[in-house]
Amino acid sequence: MYEESFKRQDKQFLIRNIRKEDINQDYIKLLQQLTEINELDEKKTNELLDMLNVNHNICVIEDNETKKVIGTGTILIEHKLIRNNGKVAHIEDIVIDQEYRHYGLGKMLINCLTEYARLGNCYKCILDCSDENMQFYEKCGYKNKGVQMSYYF
Amino acid sequence: MYEESFKRQDKQFLIRNIRKEDINQDYIKLLQQLTEINELDEKKTNELLDMLNVNHNICVIEDNETKKVIGTGTILIEHKLIRNNGKVAHIEDIVIDQEYRHYGLGKMLINCLTEYARLGNCYKCILDCSDENMQFYEKCGYKNKGVQMSYYF
Repeated sequence: MYEESFKRQDKQFLIRNIRKEDINQDYIKLLQQLTEINELDEKKTNELLDMLNVNHNICVIEDNETKKVIGTGTILIEHKLIRNNGKVAHIEDIVIDQEYRHYGLGKMLINCLTEYARLGNCYKCILDCSDENMQFYEKCGYKNKGVQMSYYF
Repeated sequence: MYEESFKRQDKQFLIRNIRKEDINQDYIKLLQQLTEINELDEKKTNELLDMLNVNHNICVIEDNETKKVIGTGTILIEHKLIRNNGKVAHIEDIVIDQEYRHYGLGKMLINCLTEYARLGNCYKCILDCSDENMQFYEKCGYKNKGVQMSYYF
């Protein structure tokens, strides 16, 4: 992921790869706005950090003034045989802090992850979302291609 | 993935992990029933084979009599921070040879991949499909959870 500074309204932001020190209580609180997350297991967190060098990538948006991480998103790269040994990027776990939801940061984040996938020679970038969020992703250039099916254990 | 022999009608099958020697012209023809695939690039195929030891897994169904691979499916494991450092299994690229589509092998394959995800301590197993295939996956215990959005490069 490239680093990029950008301005929205009166505020300056930085979009960059996650660093180990970003994974703290503030980051847990940010992810709690998305779904369930309790205290992290150090061993399992390190396993994920190891995977970041393989085929996982987490990017964060930082408020330049407060240095607080106020948005995050993940990309997972899948290697295939089909499509001429093609690669697919899966976008996961997008969240923008609720106090920052009027800056258009979600679109910035999706565009950045999509660009990362394109530069990594993926032939497509996919994600699953609720019906209500379809319109947002359409604005980011995504098209509906089917349905997501889940089996919870 | 565990190996398992099973019988359907008068035929005996084996479900097992893919081996390097399975990736041949017959396997390419099988995948062509799913989507586009041309000649494989050896370097990229080896990259995928390396990923099989990390977080990709491909399983195949073999006809015991002919030793031909007549079905295949892939699972990709995603490591998360949310859901208590949870793991998610993504099912991809399911195909059963068209001459074998009356043996219920698709359901066998999905059940096997789902079981692999469960044994690997994933908290859920997910997949994307067309509207027409929803009913099949519902029979496998899957529930519709949203829509898939794609961006093709």
